Amino acid sequence: MKIALDAMGGDFAPEMTIAGALEAVTEYDLEVVLVGDKQRISEALRDKRYPSDKISIFHAAEVVEMHEYPSTALRKKRDSSIRRAVELAKSGEADAAVSAGNSGVAMATALFLLGKSPNVDRPAIAAIMPSLTGFFVLIDAGANVDCKPENLLQFAQMGDAYYKAIFDVPNPRIALLSIGEEDTKGNELTKVAFKYLKNAGINFIGNIEGKDIFSGHADVIVCDGFIGNIVLKVSEGLAETVLKMLRREIVNVATGKIGYMMIKPAIKNFKKKTDYSEYGGAPLLGINGTCIISHGRSSSKAIKNAIKVSSEMARKKVHETIAHTLGDFVIKTKVEG
Amino acid sequence: MKIALDAMGGDFAPEMTIAGALEAVTEYDLEVVLVGDKQRISEALRDKRYPSDKISIFHAAEVVEMHEYPSTALRKKRDSSIRRAVELAKSGEADAAVSAGNSGVAMATALFLLGKSPNVDRPAIAAIMPSLTGFFVLIDAGANVDCKPENLLQFAQMGDAYYKAIFDVPNPRIALLSIGEEDTKGNELTKVAFKYLKNAGINFIGNIEGKDIFSGHADVIVCDGFIGNIVLKVSEGLAETVLKMLRREIVNVATGKIGYMMIKPAIKNFKKKTDYSEYGGAPLLGINGTCIISHGRSSSKAIKNAIKVSSEMARKKVHETIAHTLGDFVIKTKVEG
Repeated sequence: MKIALDAMGGDFAPEMTIAGALEAVTEYDLEVVLVGDKQRISEALRDKRYPSDKISIFHAAEVVEMHEYPSTALRKKRDSSIRRAVELAKSGEADAAVSAGNSGVAMATALFLLGKSPNVDRPAIAAIMPSLTGFFVLIDAGANVDCKPENLLQFAQMGDAYYKAIFDVPNPRIALLSIGEEDTKGNELTKVAFKYLKNAGINFIGNIEGKDIFSGHADVIVCDGFIGNIVLKVSEGLAETVLKMLRREIVNVATGKIGYMMIKPAIKNFKKKTDYSEYGGAPLLGINGTCIISHGRSSSKAIKNAIKVSSEMARKKVHETIAHTLGDFVIKTKVEG
Repeated sequence: MKIALDAMGGDFAPEMTIAGALEAVTEYDLEVVLVGDKQRISEALRDKRYPSDKISIFHAAEVVEMHEYPSTALRKKRDSSIRRAVELAKSGEADAAVSAGNSGVAMATALFLLGKSPNVDRPAIAAIMPSLTGFFVLIDAGANVDCKPENLLQFAQMGDAYYKAIFDVPNPRIALLSIGEEDTKGNELTKVAFKYLKNAGINFIGNIEGKDIFSGHADVIVCDGFIGNIVLKVSEGLAETVLKMLRREIVNVATGKIGYMMIKPAIKNFKKKTDYSEYGGAPLLGINGTCIISHGRSSSKAIKNAIKVSSEMARKKVHETIAHTLGDFVIKTKVEG
């Protein structure tokens, strides 16, 4: 497996992305193509020790900045590291692309160059979030706004296929994010989607409320991308806020400071377990290929994990499974309907 | 001021609601009518010390259970404690109603009996949530799904009027919950609502992303009720999850248990500051009267606070301010448009 990494993407690029790539090739049986400014990458690689047969450089002269719009970046920056990385995945020179750069641009580039899977109307982002018992997948985490019930159905099917392939779970529990457990609770979108999901041939466990998403009751939680993005970011913001507020309270009580020293390793462990970047980023599902979009603040470990997950997805051909599953469902629905 | 309290509503009723009422009349210059089963209330009051001229009982034979549907409860339980409490607020025998019972039924009853304010299309729930710098108001927190941009405009205007009246802030900062700060980011609903809010004569500070809602940058955050309910419940669920996970990590490190003992008072303080029930419940704004819906798990302090806030709202005639503000806006828009 060979992964094309957008070496220039992310808040700490290229140093952090390159460090992640070196960790990945040292730890796993795969190769990484570092895509970006050849000179800067070579400089960052100097003095580093790594299996040099597993690292190569592909020059790209431009870098997409975090504030750029997808349409403009796609049109004007034809030699950007994001674009070149995805092109390598398209041509087959690489098996997958990974970027921690501008996520809107990465998504648009993957969609534009690799194209949608057959039978997929709207590709979606599958984000992994921590729960009390481990983690769950939230789909769509922000690729689409104003979804139709048919889109939510496909998100559920894609999430199901992805979860099965990557986590080796035979029947992941799929839930629909809503404002009450009964099928009559929700908005126009979720009420219709509920009916579709019940007949989708997946292990649909019904609606899940906001307060229960972290309980571990569901493996895949399906929602419109506008809501998914808000849920993802509210969670991120709240977890940080809770720790900040807790810390402020701790230093305010007499025994707090010494107590804080004693629990500090626990806070570190907690942060580690709940840091999304540990899971290595979010794949864009429903495209003709494998592309993972990582958090801009990704650590080297997050990049390493994203490279690993992308190679797993490519090896298991998750995108083909998704195309087949959705295709079979379309045929079955036509025959029955 | 005289507040009608649904004494039978809430997970720990009537003991907890009555305790809250007694705290309220002891602490504040107001009266409470305890609405519900006369015998049970009398029993709960026995041996209690309180200013008896400030507490009265209004008998209601029925109780709405937590799982009941609004339409059925409204039609069939005409002698329920929720309904009788709202009726007292309607007839003028009380100045406001408070219920910690079935929130859907409380909302529907208030809407049905008191009616909508002139010029309000959809009444909305204004929930108070903790932030890094204090708190903010989330509107709509669950009264309406499938909102139109016009509804979001009115939520912003109602939130503005409520915030000004209750917190004595001249120009509360109003933000629109979306998936990016720029006005071009969002879904169909928020993109149009953004334009309306910019011209609403309020201190509109633009879009706010999920990760920033707890930062303290906005005083009032406006969104569709489906999303508001999910945000409210995700936050509730996540705060609990963070504390649980943190505790699990703490007892797993060598010095954790003793450290935990030392920070325990801080955790208690944190919980107190972030417990929504401390703020006393959420008013339904946009109706002809004052009605506060409290959390089912309300403590006596939460009930006391809800009673206090409802009397403040009634004294300041917030519902009339809302009717006037929205009416003036309609006239102004017609003249200008």
